[in-house]
Amino acid sequence: MNNVKQEKTVVTMGEIMLRLTPPEYGKIEQATSYLANYGGGEANVAVSLSHLGHQCCFISKLPPNELGDGAISHLKSHGINTDYIVRGSSTMGFYFLETGFGGRPGKVIYNRKHSAATRMVPSDYDFDKIFSSACWFHLSGITLALSDNTRRTCLAALKAAKEHHVIVSFDFNYRSKLWTIEEARKYYPLVMPYVDVLFASPFDFRKILQFNPDMDDADLMKEALKKYNLKYICGKTRTILSATENEMKAYVFPYDKEPIYTNEYRFQIFDRIGAGDAFASGVIHGLIKDFNNPKKAADYGIANCILKQTIFGDVSTFSESDIEEYLANQGSEEVKR
Amino acid sequence: MNNVKQEKTVVTMGEIMLRLTPPEYGKIEQATSYLANYGGGEANVAVSLSHLGHQCCFISKLPPNELGDGAISHLKSHGINTDYIVRGSSTMGFYFLETGFGGRPGKVIYNRKHSAATRMVPSDYDFDKIFSSACWFHLSGITLALSDNTRRTCLAALKAAKEHHVIVSFDFNYRSKLWTIEEARKYYPLVMPYVDVLFASPFDFRKILQFNPDMDDADLMKEALKKYNLKYICGKTRTILSATENEMKAYVFPYDKEPIYTNEYRFQIFDRIGAGDAFASGVIHGLIKDFNNPKKAADYGIANCILKQTIFGDVSTFSESDIEEYLANQGSEEVKR
Amino acid sequence: MNNVKQEKTVVTMGEIMLRLTPPEYGKIEQATSYLANYGGGEANVAVSLSHLGHQCCFISKLPPNELGDGAISHLKSHGINTDYIVRGSSTMGFYFLETGFGGRPGKVIYNRKHSAATRMVPSDYDFDKIFSSACWFHLSGITLALSDNTRRTCLAALKAAKEHHVIVSFDFNYRSKLWTIEEARKYYPLVMPYVDVLFASPFDFRKILQFNPDMDDADLMKEALKKYNLKYICGKTRTILSATENEMKAYVFPYDKEPIYTNEYRFQIFDRIGAGDAFASGVIHGLIKDFNNPKKAADYGIANCILKQTIFGDVSTFSESDIEEYLANQGSEEVKR
Amino acid sequence: MNNVKQEKTVVTMGEIMLRLTPPEYGKIEQATSYLANYGGGEANVAVSLSHLGHQCCFISKLPPNELGDGAISHLKSHGINTDYIVRGSSTMGFYFLETGFGGRPGKVIYNRKHSAATRMVPSDYDFDKIFSSACWFHLSGITLALSDNTRRTCLAALKAAKEHHVIVSFDFNYRSKLWTIEEARKYYPLVMPYVDVLFASPFDFRKILQFNPDMDDADLMKEALKKYNLKYICGKTRTILSATENEMKAYVFPYDKEPIYTNEYRFQIFDRIGAGDAFASGVIHGLIKDFNNPKKAADYGIANCILKQTIFGDVSTFSESDIEEYLANQGSEEVKR
Amino acid sequence: MNNVKQEKTVVTMGEIMLRLTPPEYGKIEQATSYLANYGGGEANVAVSLSHLGHQCCFISKLPPNELGDGAISHLKSHGINTDYIVRGSSTMGFYFLETGFGGRPGKVIYNRKHSAATRMVPSDYDFDKIFSSACWFHLSGITLALSDNTRRTCLAALKAAKEHHVIVSFDFNYRSKLWTIEEARKYYPLVMPYVDVLFASPFDFRKILQFNPDMDDADLMKEALKKYNLKYICGKTRTILSATENEMKAYVFPYDKEPIYTNEYRFQIFDRIGAGDAFASGVIHGLIKDFNNPKKAADYGIANCILKQTIFGDVSTFSESDIEEYLANQGSEEVKR
Amino acid sequence: MNNVKQEKTVVTMGEIMLRLTPPEYGKIEQATSYLANYGGGEANVAVSLSHLGHQCCFISKLPPNELGDGAISHLKSHGINTDYIVRGSSTMGFYFLETGFGGRPGKVIYNRKHSAATRMVPSDYDFDKIFSSACWFHLSGITLALSDNTRRTCLAALKAAKEHHVIVSFDFNYRSKLWTIEEARKYYPLVMPYVDVLFASPFDFRKILQFNPDMDDADLMKEALKKYNLKYICGKTRTILSATENEMKAYVFPYDKEPIYTNEYRFQIFDRIGAGDAFASGVIHGLIKDFNNPKKAADYGIANCILKQTIFGDVSTFSESDIEEYLANQGSEEVKR
Repeated sequence: MNNVKQEKTVVTMGEIMLRLTPPEYGKIEQATSYLANYGGGEANVAVSLSHLGHQCCFISKLPPNELGDGAISHLKSHGINTDYIVRGSSTMGFYFLETGFGGRPGKVIYNRKHSAATRMVPSDYDFDKIFSSACWFHLSGITLALSDNTRRTCLAALKAAKEHHVIVSFDFNYRSKLWTIEEARKYYPLVMPYVDVLFASPFDFRKILQFNPDMDDADLMKEALKKYNLKYICGKTRTILSATENEMKAYVFPYDKEPIYTNEYRFQIFDRIGAGDAFASGVIHGLIKDFNNPKKAADYGIANCILKQTIFGDVSTFSESDIEEYLANQGSEEVKR
Repeated sequence: MNNVKQEKTVVTMGEIMLRLTPPEYGKIEQATSYLANYGGGEANVAVSLSHLGHQCCFISKLPPNELGDGAISHLKSHGINTDYIVRGSSTMGFYFLETGFGGRPGKVIYNRKHSAATRMVPSDYDFDKIFSSACWFHLSGITLALSDNTRRTCLAALKAAKEHHVIVSFDFNYRSKLWTIEEARKYYPLVMPYVDVLFASPFDFRKILQFNPDMDDADLMKEALKKYNLKYICGKTRTILSATENEMKAYVFPYDKEPIYTNEYRFQIFDRIGAGDAFASGVIHGLIKDFNNPKKAADYGIANCILKQTIFGDVSTFSESDIEEYLANQGSEEVKR
Repeated sequence: MNNVKQEKTVVTMGEIMLRLTPPEYGKIEQATSYLANYGGGEANVAVSLSHLGHQCCFISKLPPNELGDGAISHLKSHGINTDYIVRGSSTMGFYFLETGFGGRPGKVIYNRKHSAATRMVPSDYDFDKIFSSACWFHLSGITLALSDNTRRTCLAALKAAKEHHVIVSFDFNYRSKLWTIEEARKYYPLVMPYVDVLFASPFDFRKILQFNPDMDDADLMKEALKKYNLKYICGKTRTILSATENEMKAYVFPYDKEPIYTNEYRFQIFDRIGAGDAFASGVIHGLIKDFNNPKKAADYGIANCILKQTIFGDVSTFSESDIEEYLANQGSEEVKR
Repeated sequence: MNNVKQEKTVVTMGEIMLRLTPPEYGKIEQATSYLANYGGGEANVAVSLSHLGHQCCFISKLPPNELGDGAISHLKSHGINTDYIVRGSSTMGFYFLETGFGGRPGKVIYNRKHSAATRMVPSDYDFDKIFSSACWFHLSGITLALSDNTRRTCLAALKAAKEHHVIVSFDFNYRSKLWTIEEARKYYPLVMPYVDVLFASPFDFRKILQFNPDMDDADLMKEALKKYNLKYICGKTRTILSATENEMKAYVFPYDKEPIYTNEYRFQIFDRIGAGDAFASGVIHGLIKDFNNPKKAADYGIANCILKQTIFGDVSTFSESDIEEYLANQGSEEVKR
Repeated sequence: MNNVKQEKTVVTMGEIMLRLTPPEYGKIEQATSYLANYGGGEANVAVSLSHLGHQCCFISKLPPNELGDGAISHLKSHGINTDYIVRGSSTMGFYFLETGFGGRPGKVIYNRKHSAATRMVPSDYDFDKIFSSACWFHLSGITLALSDNTRRTCLAALKAAKEHHVIVSFDFNYRSKLWTIEEARKYYPLVMPYVDVLFASPFDFRKILQFNPDMDDADLMKEALKKYNLKYICGKTRTILSATENEMKAYVFPYDKEPIYTNEYRFQIFDRIGAGDAFASGVIHGLIKDFNNPKKAADYGIANCILKQTIFGDVSTFSESDIEEYLANQGSEEVKR
Repeated sequence: MNNVKQEKTVVTMGEIMLRLTPPEYGKIEQATSYLANYGGGEANVAVSLSHLGHQCCFISKLPPNELGDGAISHLKSHGINTDYIVRGSSTMGFYFLETGFGGRPGKVIYNRKHSAATRMVPSDYDFDKIFSSACWFHLSGITLALSDNTRRTCLAALKAAKEHHVIVSFDFNYRSKLWTIEEARKYYPLVMPYVDVLFASPFDFRKILQFNPDMDDADLMKEALKKYNLKYICGKTRTILSATENEMKAYVFPYDKEPIYTNEYRFQIFDRIGAGDAFASGVIHGLIKDFNNPKKAADYGIANCILKQTIFGDVSTFSESDIEEYLANQGSEEVKR
């Protein structure tokens, strides 16, 4: 496959929420204040890719109030095109995050069931126009989980993207607090035919796409690549030592080549939300630069993922040079002065 | 009418929400953090009456998560009996408050449409038990506005309260962001037959109860007292000099006596949310102490209302001696040292 | 004169600095933390006009470091086009603000003498391209004061603007901490021939443009309008009651009509920095909407100016409806709920 | 021994203080602000047991001012019965905590010598009434150390508890900043005859109860069990790797069975104050559920102890399910979303 | 009387405490954090005089812990000589301040009864050495109120000061939370013979020094000047409009001349603690510069007093030029930029 | 060599800057506030030595504004003599610090190029007077890097120090953001003849002093000791495991004895700025106490260095007993209570 047209836009679509986090590792029950930032899977990918030098456009629906304005201001501050975000319905999606510490795991409380994003409908967007100048479209299973409306909108967008020969990446991102596996099993298969680059784990193939659970991981990947005619399946494996220290490595399974693995890294965590989105962003960045160098893409992915976890909030704001530096030094650098 | 049995419980019923306020008079659009506190009309009345020395019980429905736990912890910290709060449904009600300053008015964004409180149903509560040990029941038009469920629950509670000869106070509290006047007109009249002490303004009688709009204010009050067989109609008039400075006086119209007015006070505002609830609390406190001294009750009401506005949050935590002191000194006191 | 082409861009040019303010009315000498925001005369005008619905472009020079990135992120978050900002030189301009309170006046310490903005040169910018799609150009005397480089750049920009028939507004903004009146006298006269809409006070005409000091204010204005062929001279008079309470009214002197005055407003101040820029923004907004309605423009100017002073930071983020509401209610509004 | 009557109340008695902690690992000498929370050994045990589902009552003396009110509000917010707290004397007990970091140990400065709690006298409390509805009484050596008054009150309470067949637990908690070992030696022996469940270390037996110092730890425990007719001796051993990382395991020595040990855990520390109280709470919870399952009690103790150290403040607010989850996953859990 | 030797040291003696203030006008009962600063009458006078250009020495006793270190660090940071502060005893004096707002008055809770300062004894200090290089000694009734120890130390210091011909100023500062009027009546008279410059109100003469209560204010002053052979009696009258707005004017009664009054000022209050100390400091500064110009001294006093109230904390850090500027502009100044 | 005269003053000279740090490990680009503290190599050494019990004097130049006042107040609060600091020029030096976390390295942005300190000239200081009462002079390569002015001032100071037989220590502290190695090579050799105690690494000898790069480290040290007639060369080696965890050991090479090494310590980092200055301070303290015990000095150095890194800011405020305790316990201590 030839390389991606870098001068074109990366499009992502989904929900962006207000996140509320008790400061200083506090518990929600006792919180007297919350830190506020905006985040959401596909929005986070757009932000990171913007910092990695790409033109990015985020598609969504937001309420016509100050909270919606705040989300747009956040996106614009990172250079995202927000022209296609529709304003309507009355409610912002939120989530509360209780940050884990050491032996205490983090917790999330969602408040997004009736949000504006769940009201996205295909007719809200001129997908033909949007994708005519796009080179890549990224979507995740979270948007699929939101509502019948969003599911219809996802499929309409995927169809339009394909018609415009836009590369499609999809991140499984199954969330048990949003829907059951039984519900999910109905919709993920509808998405698969459109996907070029898939972010998924063996769990996803076995439980959601209902592959033979006894197959070993590598065979599962090969079968999936073939069955859905995917270019790459990407993922990462995380060992949780504590809420504040993890180990991680990434893999890419190319269509007909041997799997590729990154080094394994042990790292400290300041805020782990958005780690997966940063991973996807790094991989996409690598593939846009050189679609035929999945090793580089996987390295970009894992480094961006780890760096994200050293800063507060849902988004990675690291540049390519920050990432290259991490890969060169493995995180063991002096203060720059 | 004889005095209220002070040793019995004051019951209030409604929604308690998480309030999120940008610190330092900030705007919601730019907020990077929020102050968090809990509040809601009838809950605020219970809290203030607890600080004024009464046994109080608050009835509501809250989600079975950490946010619901936080609301209960808040209520308990002020000594409220929370045994009758039902845990269920999945969503906490919220509201965002942008605090006004000088020439810039405050703003509220509600996020409560699908909250647990809107799912309150009569069968959730053993009203017979609750009111058997109660002396007073306070309710407001906000709870009436929430849903058909809450309306049915209000009426069931009012009926039970009356059967137990409990005094009923009701605060009109019409909120245009919750329902239209047309909708409101259907339900307020259903409540009126149960009410003994009413908090309402001429606007409420004209627009919602559809009294003759050309009648003057005093006649309106007299007619209302007679029509609904009320003991007292209470209210306050506020002159808004700026978001941070107001003037206020209170009135009480007794059933068959001359109206009573308090002094007019000019005062500075730190946080005006809950002012009306503090007023109602002060009046109820006065009437529980001496049902036949509406002047004292009005004074307690206005002082509690003004003092509330000097502290952050939705609730008044002032004691009777704080209020007496305010009335004695009109707010012109030295630091106590 | 016909109306301004609203679909075109408003261009402003100058320095944007990092402002550091001790929180809670603290003194710089004892500060252990600072609030940080970005601001600068012409940048503030661009931000406010963006919130008032205009396409805006800000021209400047910023260092190629994280502080420069932060300034650009701030501008983008408000929807400003930053494509023409040059990155170079090594230093960000700063200023420290000690916020006044009551009888204690505010203080500013500048640290901008060697900033990147002082290194702006005409060849950094393709003014021909910039102004070909512009309808308005706004500049202030602060940029003139920075360096010989900025003075040359100002004149090159003004010339190009005029060639493209762009309306030019200029705000005197004389700052004694940046240069002496003697120095200023050399350069303001060079700017005057390009100006259509002037923001200036009688002081400016007498001291800087060296008009006859004995002439009365109105005659001074008339003479200035004639001498420089101005369309409008605008300004405001401020009575400082304390650092936290002022009175203000605005005036516009049209070329050959009677002067226009707004009401006088007494208002409370949360943060007075950027008041003049908000005034200019309001006036420009009014004139872009209807160049022949200076009364409306003056009202927009004074209301935007007062509202700005109710929020933290250098910029007004108010919409036209916020401003209309202020003018309608004179700041005496209820919380909206 | 039969199981404890769970429907009855757990009573604890002691001092609750205001704790003042410089934020962000700051030093007291340079502090410009302090975080404030309330805590004290026996009060912390009551709070944790309340979160573990027990009815709890805390006995103490507090000054009749806003600081005393704050302590009571804290206790109530956690559901503690505060009806038996006497208000009197004029001074609140405080302590300042400098939180350690890495190689720098924490420090405590007490200011409690003349506190209201030191004035507790037996006649302040109706112990007969208090213990008639109690199932468990917990006390610690800290209360013993405060004053002759508290010592007399402790003995009166212990006596009453025994008369009502209430289980008594006692935590040695020797504090060298409160009294010398010589002083302590006089009073601990007076308490021992009342104790059923003892929290103590070999150090305590050797130094304070003056057992033969050459006996090995296990023999010491056996002798102590026999000598004082104890049901269980419980404790934990801590290896301090740094102020922010420790290792810990717990033990229980039953009267006539083999000692029981938990796993050893390595864990990160956010705030280590109250660790011992959380351990005692976990053990007591286990024994109340099943007095004959000391292994489960020890596990609850160690997990509650470690979880406490991941949150700010003196108290554990974890539920049984949080603790079970920790034991199942050893702290290696994903964010729940 | 000749002028004071300015090159010599101003000595003050008393207690310096840690002050703890809930932020943002919060109430103590709900506080989750406190702002911390150091203050105390005579210490505040030393700090302000240091900022006004004088060599200052503060005499006290502080505990040998980090809190005592913090107090010394505070004093040193303002240039005070702390060489004569004795370290001993174990407890720091504290006070909690609830800042008033509008109609809600401030509150103070003292925790100083057993503080190190109450243990000051004459033998702790080499007064002969201290006063041999001094020009002025300032003391207040607060130190007199602390304990028998401090009273003996005050008298020893006063005696030594007089022997070295040092000017003595004394501020009545009667505090009802420290002692009763009956107790105070025993000790103030012992101090009077040493005083040259007295800060006192008619109340003080009538109630504490037991002058004829029916005498009018001016006669009272004259009699007092004569009776105690005072050079000046100084004071201020404050009208409390609200906790955040006051009016104030100052007076000086010279020994045998007509009384002098300053203008009356209306001003806004950020933090009123230390206002009286700032007044005394301003007056003392004026008298040190020119002992025969009480008008100037009174103006310095009132301006320093008002400026103090615009900043947080107990101390005035204003310079003479800040004060002169205030007097010239009456607080109506522009931001300086 | 005989011991240093401890009763005399330690003099250090250089720049002290305002440091601005985004709180909570935040990035500069997104910062909305900064923590502020003062620091600079030689100033930090003076502060630490003051806490270790020495009379210290810091020589510098600071702007005559509130920022300069703040720096002086900081120095005074730590007991430093600031009498020889000249006030002049208009600009404070700053630096912005982005604190690293885990795999993300810290970053520094300097803003000091035109600061007052760069304008220090020899005639600003009476070095003869300054060094007549001094026992030690400490300087670093940072001051050398600032400007031609500072270089001339350094040499004048060194010359005067030597004339007064003051021990001179010098820390290479090469900073690539201030000058190139080529520039540095011209000036370091001019300093070497004055130095007694040198803080330097093999890198410094090879790259800056241009020793034979192939020589091994120990030979390099020996040659340097001989060539420059040094008493001691001291240094530390750091292994960066992450931005928040390091390993470190120190070495001292005496003139004609075997090198001395400390233990290697693994430690956690809260704030690593000023680590080198704390190391130098510890070593200097050791040598002042006993010039012939370099082992003790190295231990003091490494312990002070590690302890510094557990607190916020540029300075170590630890006492000798804190350091001794660290060395005794290796950082594994209990909370002291």
